Parts: sequence; structure tokens; C-alpha cells
Amino acid sequence: MTTLVFGHKSPDTDSTGSPIIWAWYLNEIKGEAAKPALLGEPNTEAAFMLEHWSLDKPEIIDGVAADQPVVIVDTNNPAELPAGINDADIRAIIDHHKLVGGLETKGPIDIRIEPLACTATLMYKMIGSELGRAPDGVKGAMLSCILSDTLEFRSPTTTDEDKAVAHALADELGVDIPAFAEKMFAAKSDVSAFSDAALLRMDSKEYGVGDTKFRVSVLETTSPGTVLDRKESLMDTMGPVATEDGVDQVLLFVVDILNEEATLLVPNDLVKSVAEKSFGVDVSGDTVVLPGVVSRKKQIIPALKV
Amino acid sequence: MTTLVFGHKSPDTDSTGSPIIWAWYLNEIKGEAAKPALLGEPNTEAAFMLEHWSLDKPEIIDGVAADQPVVIVDTNNPAELPAGINDADIRAIIDHHKLVGGLETKGPIDIRIEPLACTATLMYKMIGSELGRAPDGVKGAMLSCILSDTLEFRSPTTTDEDKAVAHALADELGVDIPAFAEKMFAAKSDVSAFSDAALLRMDSKEYGVGDTKFRVSVLETTSPGTVLDRKESLMDTMGPVATEDGVDQVLLFVVDILNEEATLLVPNDLVKSVAEKSFGVDVSGDTVVLPGVVSRKKQIIPALKV
Repeated sequence: MTTLVFGHKSPDTDSTGSPIIWAWYLNEIKGEAAKPALLGEPNTEAAFMLEHWSLDKPEIIDGVAADQPVVIVDTNNPAELPAGINDADIRAIIDHHKLVGGLETKGPIDIRIEPLACTATLMYKMIGSELGRAPDGVKGAMLSCILSDTLEFRSPTTTDEDKAVAHALADELGVDIPAFAEKMFAAKSDVSAFSDAALLRMDSKEYGVGDTKFRVSVLETTSPGTVLDRKESLMDTMGPVATEDGVDQVLLFVVDILNEEATLLVPNDLVKSVAEKSFGVDVSGDTVVLPGVVSRKKQIIPALKV
Repeated sequence: MTTLVFGHKSPDTDSTGSPIIWAWYLNEIKGEAAKPALLGEPNTEAAFMLEHWSLDKPEIIDGVAADQPVVIVDTNNPAELPAGINDADIRAIIDHHKLVGGLETKGPIDIRIEPLACTATLMYKMIGSELGRAPDGVKGAMLSCILSDTLEFRSPTTTDEDKAVAHALADELGVDIPAFAEKMFAAKSDVSAFSDAALLRMDSKEYGVGDTKFRVSVLETTSPGTVLDRKESLMDTMGPVATEDGVDQVLLFVVDILNEEATLLVPNDLVKSVAEKSFGVDVSGDTVVLPGVVSRKKQIIPALKV
């Protein structure tokens, strides 16, 4: 049976590219039938990656059958995976996030998690010299994933390994990193086609502080004004989205990639208090700028206080 | 702060040797202060390994402080670890068991799990050429762990990698594998110093089938008669041990390493029924021989039916 390789729901570039990379490796190097899949529409940056490197868009699936062989990449969180994931035949997990607990496997399997910025960097290490046999599209996907997850090396999650791998790939592919990253980030910043609710859910993770459950949303963009122009309707939509998703509050951080700062929308006193306690800022209006903040994993989640 | 490296409770050879190997690697190769530890008295085979290779017995600890840096080896099961493990600063997990779910980490960490017979085999791969700098004791611990976990390559958990690593180490150390394994297994078989309750708990894992909770105990020995001579008092002790440990029934499999078979003690109708349904045997007396059965992971747990 063909193994399905997929990342998390709301696929970003890493969760779209890494399944393509690993399915290539399983098929062409390991001789095991495998197919990349997506758990939803890829975001605009991921779509740009597919287009730029002439990669087929993986099939979007909305569940996995019991005993379906799967490889999970870029997450180990059951909440970000199909409901029946523990009944699937999980063959391997390749990830760079903290261990959440909740995934179970029927027998011993291959699990590799490292504190890198990007799943694709770990795959580069795991594939080793066999990567020489990969088509440009696979290497291009790898480079795209790393530039996306590191915000072109600006994110504090970036490691020396992520950087070295990206530069090696760019050299081999003849890619000018700043020019290519600019195109990727422009694609990510084009959010005109998305509804307010879609924007609030696009890149978000649930996170609890004490008894308060947040949906912590991050929009990485080179054009923060485009998003902030919609702040009133975004804030009006937070209540309904929170209710529908069973959380207390949506927090939307608009991350300005180029200026390395985040703007948090402040729709009410709860968020005002969270902003002041978590980031030591004074909030007056309905937005507050957080200088230097670009990473949910390293800078937002660890700081959150209610 | 010095990192503590430890395996599971009721330490066997792999859970005693692997912490020694990895603490050496962290100290001498990675330049990070580390110390092996044990979560209980090592079993008699593990004690033989320490003696044979002139290794210091690691300190026995009965808990870990919050924020204590730790590396967990040879398990990922919180039930086999100190109660406060999720409050420790878990730096890495190196294991060869199925993912149980339940361990959580505060941030992304190094996790490496592979379906090998032995943690030490995985460490051999991870350490790579730096192992050349290890003292004989570290290499000897590695070899001992592999021979123990594979029952000298008899267990169906044995992979080609486990075998190749063991042979490479034996060649380098000038160890005659059959002669050395015989000594190890003789040490493991010397259970005269242990009470019946201690024997029932020595190498056991809890496992539920439907609503029935078992303590599945395995005693690997080259001298099954020594254990079976005590079968009456062992069976008398199963009730109190089960009650004290909060399970419904203790199952004791006496594994004859050399003849590659297990003898299951049958104290009551529940175990008789389990034996017949799980292994397709007819049970008449208070024991039943299961030809070819040596591995709890591969042959006992997957077969269990109530």
C-alpha cells in the first residue's frame, strides 16, 4: 500500500514542501511507494513554491483510513492531524517542534525530531549524499521551506545548520537568496483573496495559559499595512471565530518580516492586559507594536501571561 | 547544571549501559557535563556488565527536581520514569520502543527513536567515528546491551544493524561473543537472591487488553528449571502483587534463552483462557510451554487476548 506523507492542517510552505521531499526520497532512494498529501489548501507562499519549482500540488485529503501507512512531517501534535491518526499505521515522524504527547504508535518506528528551524533542514541531513540524485524541484522545495521557516534567517529559531543548508542549496541551484525570498514573502503577503475568518485561522495554534485558551495567530508579511487596513473587520470577526473554535480569545500578531517586528491587534481589555503583562508594553489604541518579535515558538508562546 | 542520563525503572542491561555510553559521549565529545543515573538497582546481568568492564555503578536516584536537565534513554513511557518527569528539562530522548504518548517537552529537543533491538545500537550510529575515542568500557557496555536485548541475536527484534554493530565491537574488543554471552546470561539466570515479588516485578510492563490490566513479566534465563522450581510460591505471590500494583493479573513468562521457548505460569482460569486464546495452545497443568516465544514486544504483547 502506498504510504501517504503529510504535514499539519493549514499547510504552510514547510508542511507542503517537506511531504514532497520525503515522498521523493521514499520512492526514488528507498524504493518504497509513497505519495505526498495535504490536509488543506496550501497558503499563498506554499502555492508560489509549487508554481516556481513546477511541482504538482499534492492531493488534499480530509482523513486517513485505519491502517493506512503514513509518514507525519512538520508536526507531532494530534490536534493538527486527522482525527483517526492513531488508528493509521504511522511509519515515521520527522519534525522540529516540541514533543506534545498524544501520538501513539503500534510498534517501534522511526522518529526524528531536532530543534532546527525547519523540517526540510532535518531531511537534508537524513538524506545525505543521496540528495545529489534529486531533481531541482526537490532541492528548490527544500530551500523554499528553510527560507520560509527562518524568515530568510531573521527568525531567532534559525540555527547555523539551517543557514548552511540553505546556502549550499542556493549555490547549487543558482538561486539568489534575497531576490527569491522577496518573491516568496510577496506571495505570502498577498492575502486579498482570504476572508477575515480565514486570515485569523491561516497560521494559528491553540495555546492555553492557566484556564484561558487562545488561538495564537501569526500573519507573516512584507506588507503589514495591507492587513492592518482590515483591522476593524478582523477584530469584529475574532469573537465568532473564538466561539466556533472553542477558545476564549484570538490573538492576531501581524509580523513585519522586513522590519522584524509584530503588531498585535487589541480588540478588548483581555488582550490589552495580555499584551502589557507578556511583552512589557503600554497599550493605548487598538494595536501595539512589539519590536523584534517575529517567532511564535521562541518569542510569543513562551512570553504569554494572562 | 550537570545533565542526568537515565533509562527506565527496574534497570536491565540496556537501561544501565546506555546512560553510561551517552554520558561519556556528552562529557568527552560534546563537552557537556553529564552523569549516568539509575532508577533502581540494576538486575544481575547489568551488574555483571558493570563488573566485567570495570564500570562504576551509576548513582541510583528516586526522582528528578523540576528544571533538572535530563536525557531519557531506552524508554519514552512516563509510567517507567519518575513522577515529575514532565517538569524536568528534558534535553533529548533516545529510544527503540513504540511511541507511547504522555511525555511532553517545553521546547523542541533532540528525539531519536528507531525500530532497532537496542538503544546502544542507535547510539553507535549517532556517535559515529567519534566512538574511536571511547574507552573499552564504553564499547563493552554497548556490546553487552546489544547481546542482552537481542538474546545473542535470537530475539525476533534483532535487526541486521544490531548484529553488524555487535560483531564490529566484538572484533575490536577481542571478545568471543558466544562465550561472553553465556557468562552474561548465567548472571541474568542467577535469581537466587530475589524474592518472589521481586522476580514478578523485575522485567515487567503493564499492558491492558480491553478492560483487563496485566503486568506482563518476562524472566529471561538459561536455567528455567531454577525459576520453575519456585512456581508454587511465585503463583501464590501473583495475587498480592497484582493488588498492590493495581492490575488484574500478573502473567509470568519464563523465557528459555537457549532453547528459544517460553513457559507461562497458569495459576487460574483467567490465565488459562488467555494462554489458549492468545497462543492457540491447550493448557492442562499449571504451566504451558510456548515454543519459539522469546520477545514480549514482538510475540507476547501483540498476541494477548482475553
